[in-house]
Amino acid sequence: MAQRLAIIGVGLIGGSLARALRAAGEVNEIIGCGRGKENLEKAVKLGVIDSYTHDTGKAVTGSDLIFLAVPLGAMAQTFAAMKGHLSENTVITDGGSAKGSVINDCKTALGELPSGFVPGHPIAGTENSGVEASFPELYQDRRVILTPTASTSKQALETVETMWHICGANVTTMSVEHHDEVLAATSHLPHMLAFSLVDSLARMKENDEIFRYAAGGFRDFTRIASSNPVMWRDICVANSEALSEMMRRYINEMTELAESIRKGDGDELLEIFSRAKAARDRYVEKANQRKP
Amino acid sequence: MAQRLAIIGVGLIGGSLARALRAAGEVNEIIGCGRGKENLEKAVKLGVIDSYTHDTGKAVTGSDLIFLAVPLGAMAQTFAAMKGHLSENTVITDGGSAKGSVINDCKTALGELPSGFVPGHPIAGTENSGVEASFPELYQDRRVILTPTASTSKQALETVETMWHICGANVTTMSVEHHDEVLAATSHLPHMLAFSLVDSLARMKENDEIFRYAAGGFRDFTRIASSNPVMWRDICVANSEALSEMMRRYINEMTELAESIRKGDGDELLEIFSRAKAARDRYVEKANQRKP
Repeated sequence: MAQRLAIIGVGLIGGSLARALRAAGEVNEIIGCGRGKENLEKAVKLGVIDSYTHDTGKAVTGSDLIFLAVPLGAMAQTFAAMKGHLSENTVITDGGSAKGSVINDCKTALGELPSGFVPGHPIAGTENSGVEASFPELYQDRRVILTPTASTSKQALETVETMWHICGANVTTMSVEHHDEVLAATSHLPHMLAFSLVDSLARMKENDEIFRYAAGGFRDFTRIASSNPVMWRDICVANSEALSEMMRRYINEMTELAESIRKGDGDELLEIFSRAKAARDRYVEKANQRKP
Repeated sequence: MAQRLAIIGVGLIGGSLARALRAAGEVNEIIGCGRGKENLEKAVKLGVIDSYTHDTGKAVTGSDLIFLAVPLGAMAQTFAAMKGHLSENTVITDGGSAKGSVINDCKTALGELPSGFVPGHPIAGTENSGVEASFPELYQDRRVILTPTASTSKQALETVETMWHICGANVTTMSVEHHDEVLAATSHLPHMLAFSLVDSLARMKENDEIFRYAAGGFRDFTRIASSNPVMWRDICVANSEALSEMMRRYINEMTELAESIRKGDGDELLEIFSRAKAARDRYVEKANQRKP
C-alpha cells in the first residue's frame, strides 16, 4: 500500500505500526525519524525500520505515507519541519490522543490543512514504551478513530482506513470535537482521578502509613497513576477544553455525592451505587462479547 | 482457643474465619447464625459450621467467642439481639469496615461497651460473596486492624490477636478515629471515585458510545464500581464523618487540578503527575517487598 513509509517517532506506537505493515508485506521501505540515535539504531537492528534520519524534512521527502507518533507537545515543531517537503499525494496520519490540538498545530505550521492529512487515534498501548516494546499485533481488534477534516480527500481517508485494517484494527470515523469529548470522558478524566487521588494521599502527613493499609483494589484503581507524567501533561494541555468540561461535570457529581454522604442519605447513595454497578457490569459484558 | 465459636453472618468473611480456625484445630464447635436458611444449610454441608440458628440470642448463649460478620447496617439490631445473652467472659469481635459506627451501635444496644468487645477489621475480601466463596487462607498475610475501646480487657484483646494470628494475618492496633480515617482514604474514597465516574458517564446522553471507546485502563480503574451497592451504602453511612472530610479534601485537589488544566499550566500539571507517579511506584515497590 506504500512505496515508502516514514515513521516520525519510533516507539511503541510507531514501531508497532511499522512491524504490522511490514509483516503484511504492504510497504517496500520504512524510514524512521527521531531524536535518539540509540533508539533508532535499535529499530534498524530489530528490522522495524530500514534506515533512519534525525531530519524530519528528509524523512518525509519521497515518502508517500507518513505516520506521526511523536508526543502531542512535539506535533507543532514536527509539522513545521515538514513544511516544503510534502508532495501533493503524500498521505499523513498520526496517533495523537487528542485531535483538535494536532489539527491546529498542522494548520498553524503549514498554513492550511493538506488534503492528504487524516488525523487519527489508535486506542491501544501497553505499560511499556520504546521500540523494543513494539509488536505487530498491538492494533489487532483495537479501535482506531479517524477525524478527517473538511480538507481531507476521500482517497487519503481510504488509504489510512486500509492501513489500519491491515493492522487488524476496527476503524471508526467521527468529528474531532466528538473524539476529544469521548476521550476526555473515558481516558483523560480517569487518569486525572487516579493521579489526583494518589497525590492527595501522598500529601497527607501520615502518607507512608496510609499507603500501607491500601488493599488490593487500590492497586488496580491507581495503576494508571503510574503513567508517563510528560505524556499526560501534553494530553491535558492539548485537550484542555473538553477535559475541563468533563472535570467540571465530575466535580459537580462528586460534590452531590459528598453531600449525600454527609447527610447519611442511604436511599440516594444506594441509587447512585446501583446505577453505577449496573452500567459497569453492562460495559464489561459488552466488552467481553467483543473479544471472543 | 475457643470451646464454642458463634459466627453471626456466615458468608465469605465469617465462613473463611470459621474454616481457618477449624483447619487449625482451634475450636471445638462452631454455630452459625443468619437469616437465609439455604445459605446456613450449605454452610453445614460444607463443614464450615456444625449447626445453625436464626436466633442471635441462642447463637451467643454458651459461646465463648463471637464473630460478627453482618453488614454494617445490621450491626445495631445484632447487638440488640445479643443483649442479656452474653456472659462476663465472652469475647466479641467483628469484621466491619468502619469502626466508630460499630462501637456506637454496641454501646447504644447494650448500654455500655463490654470488656470482652474488641472491634476489628480484617482487610481482606474477594469479588465473590456467600459461604461457598469462603476459604481458610483468605486472611493469610493480610492485615487486620483492631481498635480496642477504653473498656476492652487485655485478655480479650490477646484472644482476638491470637485468633487472627492463627489465620495467618498481620495484626495492628490503632485508635478507632485513625482507623476510620485511614480506611476512608485508602478504600472508601477510591470506591466513591469509581462509582461516581461510572455514574457520571452513564448519565451522559451518548453513554453507550462513550463506554464503547473505553480502553483497557478503564476496566481496571472501574472494577471497584462493580462492588455491592448495599454494602457501600452502609459503609458510607457508617463512616460518614471521616469520608466526608476525605471527599472535601479530594474535591479541593480536583478543583485545583481542573484550574491548571483550564489554564494549560504545563509546569503545574507535570509536578502533580510526577509526584503521583513517584508515590504510586513507591507504594507498589513496598507492597511487592511485603509479598515474597
